[in-house]
Amino acid sequence: MERIPILKLQSYLLVSIQTDLHDVIITALQEDILKEISETGARGVLIDISALDLVDSFMARTLRDCGIMAGLLGAKVVITGIQPAVAITLVDLGLDLSGITTACDIDSGFEILQEISAIK
Amino acid sequence: MERIPILKLQSYLLVSIQTDLHDVIITALQEDILKEISETGARGVLIDISALDLVDSFMARTLRDCGIMAGLLGAKVVITGIQPAVAITLVDLGLDLSGITTACDIDSGFEILQEISAIK
Repeated sequence: MERIPILKLQSYLLVSIQTDLHDVIITALQEDILKEISETGARGVLIDISALDLVDSFMARTLRDCGIMAGLLGAKVVITGIQPAVAITLVDLGLDLSGITTACDIDSGFEILQEISAIK
Repeated sequence: MERIPILKLQSYLLVSIQTDLHDVIITALQEDILKEISETGARGVLIDISALDLVDSFMARTLRDCGIMAGLLGAKVVITGIQPAVAITLVDLGLDLSGITTACDIDSGFEILQEISAIK
Protein backbone atom coordinates (compact mmCIF):
# COMPACT_ATOMS: atom_id res chain seq x y z
CA MET A 1 0.00 0.00 0.00
CA GLU A 2 1.12 3.50 -0.82
CA ARG A 3 2.22 5.42 2.29
CA ILE A 4 2.86 9.13 2.70
CA PRO A 5 6.43 9.68 3.87
CA ILE A 6 6.88 11.60 7.10
CA LEU A 7 9.96 13.83 6.99
CA LYS A 8 11.85 14.68 10.15
CA LEU A 9 13.17 18.21 10.41
CA GLN A 10 14.92 19.00 13.69
CA SER A 11 12.35 18.36 16.46
CA TYR A 12 9.43 18.49 14.06
CA LEU A 13 7.76 16.23 11.55
CA LEU A 14 6.73 17.45 8.13
CA VAL A 15 4.05 15.77 6.06
CA SER A 16 3.33 17.02 2.56
CA ILE A 17 0.08 15.66 1.15
CA GLN A 18 0.34 15.83 -2.62
CA THR A 19 -2.67 14.01 -4.02
CA ASP A 20 -6.20 13.20 -2.99
CA LEU A 21 -5.93 10.25 -0.63
CA HIS A 22 -8.08 7.18 -0.24
CA ASP A 23 -9.57 6.75 3.23
CA VAL A 24 -7.28 3.77 3.93
CA ILE A 25 -4.16 5.81 3.21
CA ILE A 26 -5.37 8.69 5.40
CA THR A 27 -5.98 6.27 8.26
CA ALA A 28 -2.54 4.73 7.75
CA LEU A 29 -1.02 8.22 7.69
CA GLN A 30 -2.66 9.06 11.01
CA GLU A 31 -1.22 5.89 12.57
CA ASP A 32 2.22 6.57 11.05
CA ILE A 33 2.27 10.13 12.38
CA LEU A 34 1.41 8.99 15.93
CA LYS A 35 3.99 6.19 15.77
CA GLU A 36 6.63 8.60 14.50
CA ILE A 37 5.87 11.13 17.27
CA SER A 38 6.19 8.45 19.91
CA GLU A 39 9.42 7.06 18.40
CA THR A 40 11.19 10.35 17.71
CA GLY A 41 9.77 12.46 20.53
CA ALA A 42 8.86 15.13 17.97
CA ARG A 43 7.44 18.30 19.51
CA GLY A 44 5.28 19.24 16.57
CA VAL A 45 3.87 18.10 13.26
CA LEU A 46 3.34 20.29 10.23
CA ILE A 47 0.89 18.95 7.66
CA ASP A 48 0.94 20.82 4.34
CA ILE A 49 -2.14 20.39 2.18
CA SER A 50 -1.47 23.21 -0.30
CA ALA A 51 -1.60 20.74 -3.19
CA LEU A 52 -5.16 19.66 -2.35
CA ASP A 53 -8.15 21.21 -4.14
CA LEU A 54 -10.59 19.14 -2.19
CA VAL A 55 -10.88 17.94 1.41
CA ASP A 56 -13.79 15.64 2.19
CA SER A 57 -15.47 15.09 5.52
CA PHE A 58 -13.50 11.94 6.32
CA MET A 59 -10.20 13.66 5.73
CA ALA A 60 -11.21 16.76 7.72
CA ARG A 61 -12.29 14.56 10.65
CA THR A 62 -9.12 12.46 10.48
CA LEU A 63 -6.91 15.56 10.44
CA ARG A 64 -8.75 17.00 13.44
CA ASP A 65 -8.59 13.70 15.34
CA CYS A 66 -4.91 13.41 14.48
CA GLY A 67 -4.35 16.86 16.02
CA ILE A 68 -6.08 15.85 19.23
CA MET A 69 -4.28 12.48 19.43
CA ALA A 70 -0.90 14.08 18.75
CA GLY A 71 -1.70 16.57 21.52
CA LEU A 72 -2.12 13.65 23.92
CA LEU A 73 1.37 12.48 22.92
CA GLY A 74 2.73 15.96 23.62
CA ALA A 75 3.07 17.20 20.05
CA LYS A 76 1.31 20.15 18.43
CA VAL A 77 -0.15 19.90 14.93
CA VAL A 78 -0.28 22.80 12.49
CA ILE A 79 -1.98 22.48 9.11
CA THR A 80 -0.66 24.75 6.38
CA GLY A 81 -1.66 25.76 2.88
CA ILE A 82 -5.44 25.36 3.06
CA GLN A 83 -6.62 26.62 -0.36
CA PRO A 84 -9.43 29.23 -0.42
CA ALA A 85 -11.69 26.72 -2.22
CA VAL A 86 -11.00 24.13 0.49
CA ALA A 87 -11.79 26.66 3.24
CA ILE A 88 -15.08 27.49 1.51
CA THR A 89 -16.01 23.81 1.17
CA LEU A 90 -15.13 23.06 4.80
CA VAL A 91 -17.37 25.85 6.08
CA ASP A 92 -20.19 25.22 3.55
CA LEU A 93 -20.31 21.56 4.54
CA GLY A 94 -20.14 22.40 8.24
CA LEU A 95 -16.91 20.44 8.57
CA ASP A 96 -15.05 21.27 11.69
CA LEU A 97 -11.32 21.84 12.09
CA SER A 98 -11.75 23.63 15.40
CA GLY A 99 -8.89 23.01 17.78
CA ILE A 100 -6.44 22.69 14.89
CA THR A 101 -3.96 25.51 14.35
CA THR A 102 -3.60 26.57 10.73
CA ALA A 103 -1.15 28.78 8.85
CA CYS A 104 -0.90 30.01 5.28
CA ASP A 105 2.52 28.59 4.46
CA ILE A 106 5.23 26.36 5.85
CA ASP A 107 7.43 29.20 7.10
CA SER A 108 4.61 30.66 9.21
CA GLY A 109 3.61 27.14 10.22
CA PHE A 110 7.08 26.44 11.61
CA GLU A 111 7.16 29.78 13.43
CA ILE A 112 3.82 28.99 15.07
CA LEU A 113 4.97 25.44 15.92
CA GLN A 114 8.12 26.79 17.56
CA GLU A 115 6.08 29.25 19.62
CA ILE A 116 3.35 26.86 20.73
CA SER A 117 5.61 23.90 21.32
CA ALA A 118 7.99 25.99 23.43
CA ILE A 119 5.33 26.88 26.00
CA LYS A 120 3.60 23.54 26.22
CA MET B 1 -1.46 16.93 -15.00
CA GLU B 2 -0.26 15.96 -11.57
CA ARG B 3 2.52 18.23 -10.29
CA ILE B 4 4.84 17.74 -7.36
CA PRO B 5 4.45 20.65 -4.92
CA ILE B 6 7.59 22.62 -4.11
CA LEU B 7 7.61 23.78 -0.50
CA LYS B 8 9.42 26.94 0.51
CA LEU B 9 11.25 26.85 3.83
CA GLN B 10 13.15 30.04 4.68
CA SER B 11 15.63 30.58 1.80
CA TYR B 12 15.38 26.99 0.63
CA LEU B 13 13.02 24.86 -1.41
CA LEU B 14 11.97 21.40 -0.33
CA VAL B 15 10.70 18.78 -2.74
CA SER B 16 9.49 15.45 -1.40
CA ILE B 17 9.09 12.84 -4.12
CA GLN B 18 6.62 10.27 -2.84
CA THR B 19 5.83 7.95 -5.72
CA ASP B 20 7.48 6.71 -8.88
CA LEU B 21 7.07 9.50 -11.40
CA HIS B 22 6.32 9.41 -15.11
CA ASP B 23 8.95 11.06 -17.28
CA VAL B 24 6.56 13.93 -18.11
CA ILE B 25 6.05 14.74 -14.42
CA ILE B 26 9.80 14.61 -13.73
CA THR B 27 10.42 17.02 -16.60
CA ALA B 28 7.67 19.33 -15.32
CA LEU B 29 9.17 19.14 -11.83
CA GLN B 30 12.57 20.19 -13.18
CA GLU B 31 10.99 23.22 -14.89
CA ASP B 32 8.97 24.09 -11.78
CA ILE B 33 12.07 23.93 -9.56
CA LEU B 34 14.03 26.25 -11.85
CA LYS B 35 11.09 28.65 -12.13
CA GLU B 36 10.65 28.67 -8.36
CA ILE B 37 14.37 29.35 -7.78
CA SER B 38 14.28 32.27 -10.17
CA GLU B 39 11.06 33.67 -8.66
CA THR B 40 11.92 33.26 -4.99
CA GLY B 41 15.70 33.69 -5.15
CA ALA B 42 16.07 30.46 -3.17
CA ARG B 43 19.66 29.65 -2.24
CA GLY B 44 19.23 25.91 -2.21
CA VAL B 45 16.95 23.02 -3.07
CA LEU B 46 16.56 19.86 -1.08
CA ILE B 47 15.07 16.91 -2.95
CA ASP B 48 14.05 14.00 -0.72
CA ILE B 49 13.66 10.65 -2.48
CA SER B 50 13.53 8.43 0.62
CA ALA B 51 10.14 7.08 -0.47
CA LEU B 52 11.51 5.77 -3.78
CA ASP B 53 12.57 2.13 -4.15
CA LEU B 54 13.57 2.64 -7.74
CA VAL B 55 15.31 5.39 -9.70
CA ASP B 56 15.61 4.83 -13.45
CA SER B 57 18.18 6.32 -15.81
CA PHE B 58 15.88 9.12 -16.97
CA MET B 59 15.19 10.23 -13.43
CA ALA B 60 18.86 10.03 -12.41
CA ARG B 61 19.85 12.12 -15.44
CA THR B 62 17.08 14.66 -14.84
CA LEU B 63 18.07 15.05 -11.17
CA ARG B 64 21.71 15.56 -12.12
CA ASP B 65 20.82 18.05 -14.87
CA CYS B 66 18.51 19.85 -12.44
CA GLY B 67 21.45 20.21 -10.02
CA ILE B 68 23.67 21.70 -12.71
CA MET B 69 20.93 24.04 -14.00
CA ALA B 70 20.04 25.18 -10.47
CA GLY B 71 23.76 25.86 -9.94
CA LEU B 72 23.68 28.22 -12.93
CA LEU B 73 20.82 30.08 -11.24
CA GLY B 74 22.88 30.33 -8.06
CA ALA B 75 21.17 27.62 -6.00
CA LYS B 76 22.70 24.44 -4.64
CA VAL B 77 20.88 21.11 -4.84
CA VAL B 78 21.15 18.38 -2.23
CA ILE B 79 19.44 15.01 -2.70
CA THR B 80 18.54 13.18 0.49
CA GLY B 81 17.29 9.75 1.47
CA ILE B 82 18.75 7.61 -1.32
CA GLN B 83 17.80 4.07 -0.30
CA PRO B 84 20.57 1.41 -0.26
CA ALA B 85 18.76 -0.48 -3.04
CA VAL B 86 18.64 2.68 -5.15
CA ALA B 87 22.35 3.33 -4.58
CA ILE B 88 23.13 -0.24 -5.69
CA THR B 89 20.99 0.12 -8.82
CA LEU B 90 22.54 3.47 -9.73
CA VAL B 91 26.06 2.08 -9.54
CA ASP B 92 25.18 -1.27 -11.17
CA LEU B 93 23.61 0.51 -14.12
CA GLY B 94 26.48 2.97 -14.36
CA LEU B 95 24.11 5.88 -13.77
CA ASP B 96 25.91 8.99 -12.79
CA LEU B 97 24.94 11.43 -10.03
CA SER B 98 28.41 12.95 -9.88
CA GLY B 99 28.38 16.63 -9.11
CA ILE B 100 25.27 16.22 -6.98
CA THR B 101 25.61 16.52 -3.22
CA THR B 102 23.76 13.84 -1.27
CA ALA B 103 22.88 13.35 2.39
CA CYS B 104 21.23 10.57 4.36
CA ASP B 105 18.36 12.60 5.79
CA ILE B 106 16.72 16.01 5.61
CA ASP B 107 18.39 17.37 8.74
CA SER B 108 21.88 16.65 7.39
CA GLY B 109 20.75 17.86 3.96
CA PHE B 110 19.76 21.23 5.37
CA GLU B 111 23.00 21.53 7.32
CA ILE B 112 24.99 20.84 4.17
CA LEU B 113 22.84 23.28 2.16
CA GLN B 114 23.42 26.01 4.75
CA GLU B 115 27.17 25.41 4.62
CA ILE B 116 27.58 25.23 0.86
CA SER B 117 25.14 28.00 0.06
CA ALA B 118 26.86 30.33 2.54
CA ILE B 119 30.20 30.19 0.76
CA LYS B 120 28.94 30.37 -2.78
